[in-house]
Amino acid sequence: MIETNDPGLRCWLDDANDSACDFPIQNLPLGVFTLRGQSPGAHRIGVAIGQHVLDLSIVWPELCPDLADLGPALFAQHSLNPLLNRGRKTWTLVRHRISRWLRESSPALRDNPDLRSRCLVPMDQAVMHLPVEVGDYTDFYSSKEHATNVGMMFRDPANALLPNWKHLPVGYHGRSSSIVVSGTDIHRPCGQTNPEDAPTPTFGPCRLLDFELEVGFITGPGNALGRPIDVNQAHEHIFGLVLVNDWSARDIQKWEYVPLGPFTAKNFATSISPWVVPIEALDPYRVRTPRGPDDPPVQKYLDGAWDWNFDLNLEVRLQSAKMREQGIAPVPVTRNNFSLMYWNMCQQLAHQTITGCNVRPGDLYASGTVSGPTPDSRGSMLEICWKGTQPLTLPTGEQRRFLADGDTVIMTGHSARPDLPRIGLGEVRGTILRAPGA
Amino acid sequence: MIETNDPGLRCWLDDANDSACDFPIQNLPLGVFTLRGQSPGAHRIGVAIGQHVLDLSIVWPELCPDLADLGPALFAQHSLNPLLNRGRKTWTLVRHRISRWLRESSPALRDNPDLRSRCLVPMDQAVMHLPVEVGDYTDFYSSKEHATNVGMMFRDPANALLPNWKHLPVGYHGRSSSIVVSGTDIHRPCGQTNPEDAPTPTFGPCRLLDFELEVGFITGPGNALGRPIDVNQAHEHIFGLVLVNDWSARDIQKWEYVPLGPFTAKNFATSISPWVVPIEALDPYRVRTPRGPDDPPVQKYLDGAWDWNFDLNLEVRLQSAKMREQGIAPVPVTRNNFSLMYWNMCQQLAHQTITGCNVRPGDLYASGTVSGPTPDSRGSMLEICWKGTQPLTLPTGEQRRFLADGDTVIMTGHSARPDLPRIGLGEVRGTILRAPGA
Repeated sequence: MIETNDPGLRCWLDDANDSACDFPIQNLPLGVFTLRGQSPGAHRIGVAIGQHVLDLSIVWPELCPDLADLGPALFAQHSLNPLLNRGRKTWTLVRHRISRWLRESSPALRDNPDLRSRCLVPMDQAVMHLPVEVGDYTDFYSSKEHATNVGMMFRDPANALLPNWKHLPVGYHGRSSSIVVSGTDIHRPCGQTNPEDAPTPTFGPCRLLDFELEVGFITGPGNALGRPIDVNQAHEHIFGLVLVNDWSARDIQKWEYVPLGPFTAKNFATSISPWVVPIEALDPYRVRTPRGPDDPPVQKYLDGAWDWNFDLNLEVRLQSAKMREQGIAPVPVTRNNFSLMYWNMCQQLAHQTITGCNVRPGDLYASGTVSGPTPDSRGSMLEICWKGTQPLTLPTGEQRRFLADGDTVIMTGHSARPDLPRIGLGEVRGTILRAPGA
Repeated sequence: MIETNDPGLRCWLDDANDSACDFPIQNLPLGVFTLRGQSPGAHRIGVAIGQHVLDLSIVWPELCPDLADLGPALFAQHSLNPLLNRGRKTWTLVRHRISRWLRESSPALRDNPDLRSRCLVPMDQAVMHLPVEVGDYTDFYSSKEHATNVGMMFRDPANALLPNWKHLPVGYHGRSSSIVVSGTDIHRPCGQTNPEDAPTPTFGPCRLLDFELEVGFITGPGNALGRPIDVNQAHEHIFGLVLVNDWSARDIQKWEYVPLGPFTAKNFATSISPWVVPIEALDPYRVRTPRGPDDPPVQKYLDGAWDWNFDLNLEVRLQSAKMREQGIAPVPVTRNNFSLMYWNMCQQLAHQTITGCNVRPGDLYASGTVSGPTPDSRGSMLEICWKGTQPLTLPTGEQRRFLADGDTVIMTGHSARPDLPRIGLGEVRGTILRAPGA
């Protein structure tokens, strides 16, 4: 276990030592923020610590005179991309320095109230932005339970998984332009549907709007075009993790997706959490990728990195507009764990690049919907309500088969164990607005 | 017809007045280049004129003192994106200025040998680069003849087109990172295939490597997230056209593409031509989008811009390594015309954004394989050789069902009519290298 993960570390900021806190000193996720009330404020890179954001654009030059140049180059920036571009050596250096400044025993920042007042921002004073400029976004389909559920609903329940599914991490290219940060409202999309397989399709607002609970990883330096990434080296290209809500228009998808896959059904928005949690922080929570006796062996290029799943608890909560009006808190609609994923991120990256496809700093690769084996652990409304046949009842008595206008979806994720500090991914949240013109 | 398209215009550069030339004064395509032998040379924006490149980073500040600031901001750049970001008003201004400097009657540059020697580069001294930083790349599937051929080969010959095909421009998101400029060699990809539908797939170099003849358009300023682009305004968001070779690994695609579409079968490389031809230059060649009496009416959001097809001749030539050794010129393997596309680029952009998906400056949207109605006008080896059943014989006696290592594929495109100047797209060229490690 590396030093910055030491469970014994404590921070001189009390709120970072709360065992329920997502962002203790062992986490140190990075994000992009501006100061509330400053418009247009200067974007800068921060690290989440307890209930605060540490402004690296300010603190770095003052506490790292030996590496002062890195301050403007990496931290007075609109995105993490310049830092992502530097690679593991710089990431580790940055992480170690921040960890040291924040330790209980470290006076440099603790005992400098002037500097502290300038670089430590209460979280509610920070407006979070997209942490990265995403070059390419790939969405995988790597939860066996999710793929099985979809196969059972739409294809053959006896052969729910397609023949290729256990041989390669199925995936597709998504839309980068419409990736938005948590808190961004989502317009219900309009589009063509053909619910009754009629001779003529209809047009209008999506009627089967859904979330998909996913976890994404963000890359640093990639590979040269034509040179695949080895599965056992793939983790060296991964900076960290975010939560992903891959909003989906099920009725649009059903009509459009043959034969080339999801297109406008997915291109209107994908929400991600603002804090990128370094994979180093989650290192204590790495677990083996599950395989059963009936699972076939995989091709050599995918046969490795078998200890790169993460024991990460995921939850989705829902709050309708009526619940909000009545002061009723969001209710959980699913809980599961990321550890069950059949294909892990190293295998996904090896597959993405096996043809020689190049990866760049700031790419986003999402897991695909994460579903668990039980009805209360399914990762989408499609599965939770089983194609609309098992509606959810909210505390207001309202029923849901899919998402309604005004619904807020909140996804959270964290790793926790009695002997280890909690490492949280924060949340990704979005509220459905009615369709334009509707 | 706008002034810069006047067929009577002539340039003081003789080579630009050759009727066989792709780049007369009525064309004025833009690209990014460095000077051969300068490494690393400074990237700058140029315009192709005859057999020369006019360096806008040099000529603009000298001939436009009133707008000198635009020189470094738009033309001393690594890509056209800053110019694309400015929109139609600036594009038109730039086009008109360049057109004026190059006219036979215009002395400013013609009679300034010093400036000419600094800003006019023989084309063989210019190394061309990717013209744009592509944010998102969408590949459509809009040729009825192509979709019909594929449907006949792989699905039901009697119902070759899927039910959605005539109701919306089917498309999918492609990979931006591996878009390369003409002249870049292409590594044959490795991947999983399952040619015999065996219980276990195999791994190795792609055996059914193909080209796809396509035309792409590049966007300028887009729309806000949540606000669709009107089909009748779509052209205002389009800067210009390039040739696209959408390299495809047919055997990898067959195994991987269900249910989410092409992924690694397409992600290893997409080649584009270096010169972006403004849609203004092709304005005289606009034609109506074809519809027959049996074609169904389309949804309102697609019902417009019916005069945005282009009469553009396309050709693919092939040269094997052996032909190259024996000094045999590339031979044409297909010829067709872009005018037959069932869905045009305005309709494609309206469909891409109908859900509210946002477009950004520098996006690439490709047409999908362009095929004509006759066997000699098919746009891919898959169709030309009809799934390998009708091999091509090259002048060396070599046979081809798909592409072999060492094969060079050259795509060209131009519009021409007796009463109009020829407007060419130049070429996109690529040579197949053997698979890494093979």
